Parts: sequence; C-alpha cells; structure tokens
Amino acid sequence: MDEFDLIARYFRTERLQRAAASGAVALGIGDDAALLQPAAGQQLVISTDTLVEGVHFPVNGPPAELGYRALAVAVSDLAAMAAEPLGFTLALTLPQAEAGWLQAFSAGLGDAARDCRINLIGGDTTRGPLNIGVTVFGQVPAAQALTRSGARPGDLLCVGGCLGDGAAGLAVVLGQALPAGLPMAEQNYLHQRFWRPLPQLALGALLRGHASAGLDVSDGLLADAAHIAKASGVCLQINGPQLPMSDALRSWPERQQLDWMLRGGDDYVLLFTLPRAARGQIQRWRQAGQRVSVIGQVQAGQGVQLDLGLGMRPVDGPGGYQHFRSQDD
Amino acid sequence: MDEFDLIARYFRTERLQRAAASGAVALGIGDDAALLQPAAGQQLVISTDTLVEGVHFPVNGPPAELGYRALAVAVSDLAAMAAEPLGFTLALTLPQAEAGWLQAFSAGLGDAARDCRINLIGGDTTRGPLNIGVTVFGQVPAAQALTRSGARPGDLLCVGGCLGDGAAGLAVVLGQALPAGLPMAEQNYLHQRFWRPLPQLALGALLRGHASAGLDVSDGLLADAAHIAKASGVCLQINGPQLPMSDALRSWPERQQLDWMLRGGDDYVLLFTLPRAARGQIQRWRQAGQRVSVIGQVQAGQGVQLDLGLGMRPVDGPGGYQHFRSQDD
Repeated sequence: MDEFDLIARYFRTERLQRAAASGAVALGIGDDAALLQPAAGQQLVISTDTLVEGVHFPVNGPPAELGYRALAVAVSDLAAMAAEPLGFTLALTLPQAEAGWLQAFSAGLGDAARDCRINLIGGDTTRGPLNIGVTVFGQVPAAQALTRSGARPGDLLCVGGCLGDGAAGLAVVLGQALPAGLPMAEQNYLHQRFWRPLPQLALGALLRGHASAGLDVSDGLLADAAHIAKASGVCLQINGPQLPMSDALRSWPERQQLDWMLRGGDDYVLLFTLPRAARGQIQRWRQAGQRVSVIGQVQAGQGVQLDLGLGMRPVDGPGGYQHFRSQDD
Repeated sequence: MDEFDLIARYFRTERLQRAAASGAVALGIGDDAALLQPAAGQQLVISTDTLVEGVHFPVNGPPAELGYRALAVAVSDLAAMAAEPLGFTLALTLPQAEAGWLQAFSAGLGDAARDCRINLIGGDTTRGPLNIGVTVFGQVPAAQALTRSGARPGDLLCVGGCLGDGAAGLAVVLGQALPAGLPMAEQNYLHQRFWRPLPQLALGALLRGHASAGLDVSDGLLADAAHIAKASGVCLQINGPQLPMSDALRSWPERQQLDWMLRGGDDYVLLFTLPRAARGQIQRWRQAGQRVSVIGQVQAGQGVQLDLGLGMRPVDGPGGYQHFRSQDD
C-alpha cells in the first residue's frame, strides 16, 4: 500500500472530515492546500502542537489514545483563546505503515474530532520516528480573543476545573505504585484524564467579554500563572488551600497532591483572570455546569506568589515541565 | 537555557516575525494561539508539510539550508493554490538544543521568509528525533483558488519552469559522481535548486482566473500529472520532447535527464492546465519573466499518457517518489 492509499483509507473518512457541521471549510483534504472561510467579523485562531514519543507520551502508547490526546491537547489552545473550532491539519511521521495502528489512531482521532466538533482539513504523512503534529484552526469575534496580556491589579484569579489530575493520570498510565485502596473507578477516571482530556470550549466561549486574560494549564499552574504575569506585567497571587482537587487525587499523600496541582501540568483546564466587577458571572457559569473556582488575585508587581498557610511568598522560577531542561534541575 | 529562552532567542526575531508588511497578523508568537485576519472577500489557504532527516533531506544537512528548504517547500503549496502568503507556524522537534545549529537554522528560515514575504506567527519546540513541521497560511479571493479538479478536455498542459533540477540537485548535494566537466557554476546552481527552491508565487497569482487546474511538482511530473488527471476525471498527455531542461541538466546522459524530468520530483515549479481560449496569456506571462512551456494537452479519458517520439503511450502508475513504498519497487 503506498502513501496515498494509506492516507485515503484511514484519514479521508467521513468521520474525520465531517465531525461537525461547518460552512467554514470550503475545500478539505486532497488538494495542495485547504480553504477556510471564517464567518464575517471573525478572526482566525491558529495553534500548533507536537507530540513526541517518550517525551509527551510513553513509548508504545495505545494508538487510539494517542490520536485522541494529540487533537484534544491542540484544541485546548482554541478553548484558551475563547475560540470556536473550525478545522485541523495532521502532520504524522511514522516508522512504518501498520494498518492496525493506523486504524486505531484514526478512531481515537475521530473520537476527539467528534467531542471537539472539529473537522480534519489537511495533512501530511511521512516516514520516520513517531511524531504527531496537529495544527488547529478556530474563529473568534474580532477583538474578543482571550489573550495572556490583559490581567490587571484587582482582578480575581480563577481556574475552570480540578488541578493535578493530569500528573496523577500519568502515574496511573505509567503503572507507578498507586496509593493502597485507590478504587478502580478513580484509576479509570485518572487514566481518562491523561489520555482523553476535554478542552474547555464551552467555558472559553462563556468567558468572552468577561475574563481579562487566560490560558490553558499545560505546563503546570505555577509556570502558566507566570506566563500570564509576565505577559500582563502584573503579580499573580495563588491561595494554596483554594486549589480544587478531584476525589481521585485525595488518595495520594498531601505533599504529592500539592506538587502535582502546582507543577504537574497536562490538566488542560482554563486559568483566567476576572475583573471583580464581573464576579457575578461565576455563579452563572457554575449554574451552566462549569466548575469555576477562585484561587487567588492579581496585584501590582511581577511574578507569582503562593500562600500555603504562612502568607504570600514569591515562587522562584516557574517550576513547570520544560522539554529542554534536564529533569534533574 | 530552557525551552522558552530558546524560542525567544532564535525565533522571536524581527527578521522572522516582520519578514513582510502585513496587516493580516493580529496576534503573533507568544500566546496560546495566533490571530489572523484575512482581508474581506478572501479565503484562507492552509497547507502543512513535514521534513524528516534521512527521508526528505540527507542526515546532518546544513541547518541554514534545512531552514530555507522547509519553509520554501511549504510555501510552494500556496503558490500552487494561486494564494498570497500571510504567515506560518513552525513545529520543530530537535534531539538537543544546540545554539549554533539553531542560529543557522533560524537564519536560513529567515532568508526564506524574506524571499517568500511571509511572517512566523507561532510554533512549538520539542525534544526528539529531528522533525521539521511547517504549516503555511495564505489568502486568495473567494472562488479563485487554483485546485486540481478543473482540467477539461482540450486544455493545454503547461509547466512554469525547468524539470529535473531537483533530482540533479540532490545528486550534487549527496556528492554522487557528476558528469565530467560539469562547471562549478552549474553545480552551484543545482545545489541551490535543491536547498533553496523558489516557490512560484508570482506565477500563481498570474494564473488566477486563467488556469483551470494546477499544483506544484513535488512528487515528480508523472505522479503529479496523475493527481490532476484523477481529480479532474481526464487524461493528461505529455509530449516528452517539449519538457524544459536547464543547461545544467544537459551535462547528464539523455536517459538520466529524462528519468529525472519525469520522476525526479522536488522541482517546485507549477504544473497547470489552461483552456485554449486563454493561450494568449502565455506570451504575456513570458514577457513578465515567467518561463512557461506548453508540454502537452488534456483529453477525455483517464490517467497519464507520454509521447517519447513513438506516439502517446499510457504511463503505468505514477512512478513518483512515495515515502511508504519500498525503493526497490
């Protein structure tokens, strides 16, 4: 089977190309390029993500889960911009063309496309060490994108869901020693939180016109808070006891919980700042099913401060996961 | 140096982000996503390409040349759609962060960005086996994109420049035995044709409203002609003696010339079909400096036919380079 047959069989599927009703895709897979037509008054939102075996996921990861995670992680950046998904391209580098692997990968990718309501519009398949590149496209009304640079002193610091589950999920996926008595249901929950994160697209849309800055927690709470602080030229203060935790995470020792909530990353929940005048929205968002927590506030200054019960203390360095830093630092 | 410092030092440069004057980039590198605003009445054109070491370029290729080629090859797909470049994202996977390599790569990438008038708007840097993913964005007036599916019987088949130089260039780059007496100037020309292909953006823009179908020759003339034939539901006939050849290529034996022109690939010149009523344009394009040749015609039927002096004969299989096919086929 040659490259073109491969692409046709596993990626030119209705399931991937028609995952969502969309008038925006004027030309999909099969030509030199795809054509997108954002609606009038909308800006196009673009983000690219790469997943590498052994870096972003364990070696020999299950292909269906890889397919899901690769797309969901990229779409999370659209949620973080308060954008509506339109389409994505896939740049897939594979050591060999193995039908079973491709079928499972395509199925997981299709699940994510369905859940995120986004269509495959183009791609490139090449031979080499496994590397999954996804570029996502969305639209947002002009001037309403949620950037990192709008946080102002006095704003509240909020998070859209539980922290630490991504790191705990990785421990489960890697088969590390788990706390005695961790129920199977909680193990399954964490397994899913790692492999099938759900981008907070609905929350992102609700934040339009209200939140002053935002992003999705991928590097870890402290590292991502530092991104907002730097881009906005402010200090972000985090109240440790207010950090939201899942029931599953409570089974671990307190020190491990805290470390994962602060530095674990891979949570893909939205972290955002909210002017106090808009705090009435929080109750409405909760009624709409969003688990929004206030975890701190914005002050004049710079960097990130953390209160673990002994008052606010500066956090030295972002402390998040960084690919080009030795893990022994 | 951590990942963020690396990106900042070598990719957040004025040279890459301001390679072209463009009002279309509303938000560039540094947030969760970039924001593009195509002009009114324009469609967004999107294409993604991956370059893998040992597959698309020799192992330990010079980083400046890799940077140039990675972007130029991707932009060629915009030319093939008759689009105007707007921006690109870079997904770069590297075994390690080596300052000299990154500096040279960024410089070559910047040269291509300048030559193609396109700005870097986002990216992702990860650790792993070398893999260069480029996604390019352009705009084209609605309904004027040049697709593969519009060729009709009676149309002329044209090419925008010399064929076979990409493959001859690869032979030079690989240090293969060259024809005796090949002048150094010709060697340099071919070296450049491989590492620094020039996307035919100006020709693509000229073809708008005239050409009926088109693409850029990357897989090889026969393979790419087959793409148009299949997408348009027609037969493409190629007159071998009309294929345009550079002076450099003439130094090789005739059989080698022909093989490279037909099957070599990597030429990145436009192959397009033109209704006979529009043939008067060809002279105008030549006067504008475009080296356009008529190399055949479109007939009712399917597939590709080739005349090497003994009449039109069907070509069995595309015969181009395909990554997932054994080279021994």
